[in-house]
Amino acid sequence: MQPYAPVPLSKATTLLNHGPVTLVSSAHGGARNVMAASWAMPLDFTPPKVAVVIDSRTLTRKLVEGSGEFVLNIPARGLAEATLAVGSRSGEEGDKFSELGLRTFQGEQVAAPLLEGCVAWLECRVLPEPHNQQRYDLFLAEVIAAWADPRVFANGRWRFEDGALRTMHYVAGGDFFATGESFKVSDAID
Amino acid sequence: MQPYAPVPLSKATTLLNHGPVTLVSSAHGGARNVMAASWAMPLDFTPPKVAVVIDSRTLTRKLVEGSGEFVLNIPARGLAEATLAVGSRSGEEGDKFSELGLRTFQGEQVAAPLLEGCVAWLECRVLPEPHNQQRYDLFLAEVIAAWADPRVFANGRWRFEDGALRTMHYVAGGDFFATGESFKVSDAID
Repeated sequence: MQPYAPVPLSKATTLLNHGPVTLVSSAHGGARNVMAASWAMPLDFTPPKVAVVIDSRTLTRKLVEGSGEFVLNIPARGLAEATLAVGSRSGEEGDKFSELGLRTFQGEQVAAPLLEGCVAWLECRVLPEPHNQQRYDLFLAEVIAAWADPRVFANGRWRFEDGALRTMHYVAGGDFFATGESFKVSDAID
Repeated sequence: MQPYAPVPLSKATTLLNHGPVTLVSSAHGGARNVMAASWAMPLDFTPPKVAVVIDSRTLTRKLVEGSGEFVLNIPARGLAEATLAVGSRSGEEGDKFSELGLRTFQGEQVAAPLLEGCVAWLECRVLPEPHNQQRYDLFLAEVIAAWADPRVFANGRWRFEDGALRTMHYVAGGDFFATGESFKVSDAID
């Protein structure tokens, strides 16, 4: 069973701030889908908002535009193969969840499913901006609920220990970086 | 002397795809500035575009709006203290470059300076979108020139070896992650 715990909305952007690859899940009218998105970032702290690019040719785009909702799932390294796979096939051709053996659970605010094997989940409601969506494939959204795996995110901070639970950063062509060692800096330069 | 080499525009988004922290440099009317921005991401491949959040209360905002240009610098770990410092003080109070001993060089397309100690540089021209800028502090821009340190980026790929030249991912409160180990995945799931 996937461990998860609520994250205060005031800490929601911290889940995404380090630039990990994300999986966008969506559901509408009896259909559901999941795709990979590296082009996602925080947009504001309070209320928390995010920006994400969703290509107009995808099933995800139809489901997000239809429902006005999505979930940004942040996959752990154990989901690397699935992350590449959901990014390189279309949901129009079949249900990726069943094809790839991906298990899901439900959040509290949106119908889109949350993926097991991820370590954070941002339930998002689209802020309708038709010009951005049509011209740039750019979606802005408010985060209305957030969750994280308490093994690696607690008290508002990431604490990675187990390699399989680290987040990932996507480059291109199947190349990823793991999130590396943490270090702290103080503003002591004069 | 900072080594740098041109990056084809077709590979420009690869410099930013893994979600590293960036430094936004700007220049206008005899003033210049640099600030940290974690909220930056690719927006399109061809021509390459980026999105970045620039707070309305910053000097950078004035210089970017005045000039219509900026540079996204991607700092190496050796610049971690400076990255935090330029993110926590205002350019209105004094020239951060001289205060922090930051050296710069000039690119080819924009007046904004390129920072030494970084490993990639994206020269950007703002795509004017007043609604996004005023409502969300969100700037969209086209990348019109790109450069990278050939010690860590060559033939369109990052190849980090030296720890001091790795890129960084910012969390909050002075906490960073280094970009970690690379790994390759193939879409072999059936």
